[in-house]
Amino acid sequence: MSLERTLHHFPLDPASRQVRLVLGEKRLPFTDVVVRYWEGPRDFTALNPSGLTPVLVETQGGRSLTICENRAILEHLEEQVPEPSLLGREPEERAEARRLLEWFDRKFNFEVNGLLLHEKMERRVLGLGAPDLGALRRGREALRAHLVYIEGLLEARDWLAGRRLSLADFAAAAHLSVIDYFGDVPWRDFPSAKTWYMKLKSRPCFRPILADRWPGLAPAAFYDDLDF
Amino acid sequence: MSLERTLHHFPLDPASRQVRLVLGEKRLPFTDVVVRYWEGPRDFTALNPSGLTPVLVETQGGRSLTICENRAILEHLEEQVPEPSLLGREPEERAEARRLLEWFDRKFNFEVNGLLLHEKMERRVLGLGAPDLGALRRGREALRAHLVYIEGLLEARDWLAGRRLSLADFAAAAHLSVIDYFGDVPWRDFPSAKTWYMKLKSRPCFRPILADRWPGLAPAAFYDDLDF
Repeated sequence: MSLERTLHHFPLDPASRQVRLVLGEKRLPFTDVVVRYWEGPRDFTALNPSGLTPVLVETQGGRSLTICENRAILEHLEEQVPEPSLLGREPEERAEARRLLEWFDRKFNFEVNGLLLHEKMERRVLGLGAPDLGALRRGREALRAHLVYIEGLLEARDWLAGRRLSLADFAAAAHLSVIDYFGDVPWRDFPSAKTWYMKLKSRPCFRPILADRWPGLAPAAFYDDLDF
Repeated sequence: MSLERTLHHFPLDPASRQVRLVLGEKRLPFTDVVVRYWEGPRDFTALNPSGLTPVLVETQGGRSLTICENRAILEHLEEQVPEPSLLGREPEERAEARRLLEWFDRKFNFEVNGLLLHEKMERRVLGLGAPDLGALRRGREALRAHLVYIEGLLEARDWLAGRRLSLADFAAAAHLSVIDYFGDVPWRDFPSAKTWYMKLKSRPCFRPILADRWPGLAPAAFYDDLDF
């Protein structure tokens, strides 16, 4: 009996994008269901009490397993589909990949996306009016500080966590790709980060992300350009 | 060659407490180093660029491995010291424990501790003056909502994630125990949660937590009482 996967997600949610990228990288087909999570639909909060995307449902032979929250899904996929490994085999690699997962999901998310995406995206979908320019400026400053950090890592390493592509790269790319949808990543000032993002953008797993379009929010001109 | 562990932590930090509880539950001895993380000491930010506790350093035969951030440490300990298992063996158990880890580290932390601990503890250690009463009230309301959720889980289950003690229990207890230090958990209104917390408090791994005292911040009367 084959295992079928359904991903409940929101296209411009960085946490959802991490899971879409990893499912793509592991070549695991899935059905996708778009959730307007800010409306708190009842069938979705019954699936995940926190009301947050993403949620992965795996069904096999009449039994189903519901996995809520991106970190839980990423760890589950590593355990169930170990190849290609995106955490690495050595404790050092795994610790570094997970340190950076936390970095992007907590620190980057709080300092950058909590401002930039809130102002650029959530205000639109929630109908809260024009963005707060001060918050946008603080978000852009924090983004530059994070790009300096990423640039430093990539001057010494092939990929963010070391010599191998890992969950850290997909977490970072997922967060940055949503900002890039709005054209707000100053790539030209960060050549190593730009080369790294070009490599990721060219991978087959990235294609569905580049094809995302949300009604009323057109992406920036270079969003889906592999040679930006 | 024996493996030696050093934990860099702050006694009233819920993320640090999770790791201390799990090290205790797995009976892994460690040296502890208290970090005044809010002062951003250079030797600590060299260890963890995010500046956050906890950090675990494992040394064996002249080699050392640094593991930053609580989730990375918890997953590492599960992998390296699988017994007793605190994630469970089945994908269902692991998914549920990790869903709740995320619940406490993100949702509970944001809605409750971001207010209550900020007002009661961080303002003191940072010298920011008296607590904001409105923030305290909102934090206490959110705490009650979370206790309703915990109570509901425990009416149907022995432990938070199901039939077995898991990382979810230690995460929840770590967060609640810091609030309990300040005497702010309304246990009497939540009998199942109270019984669950009594069971945890009685475990040997909890003893060091109950012995914590921070200068100038005395704990509430029942903080270290097993029969509260």
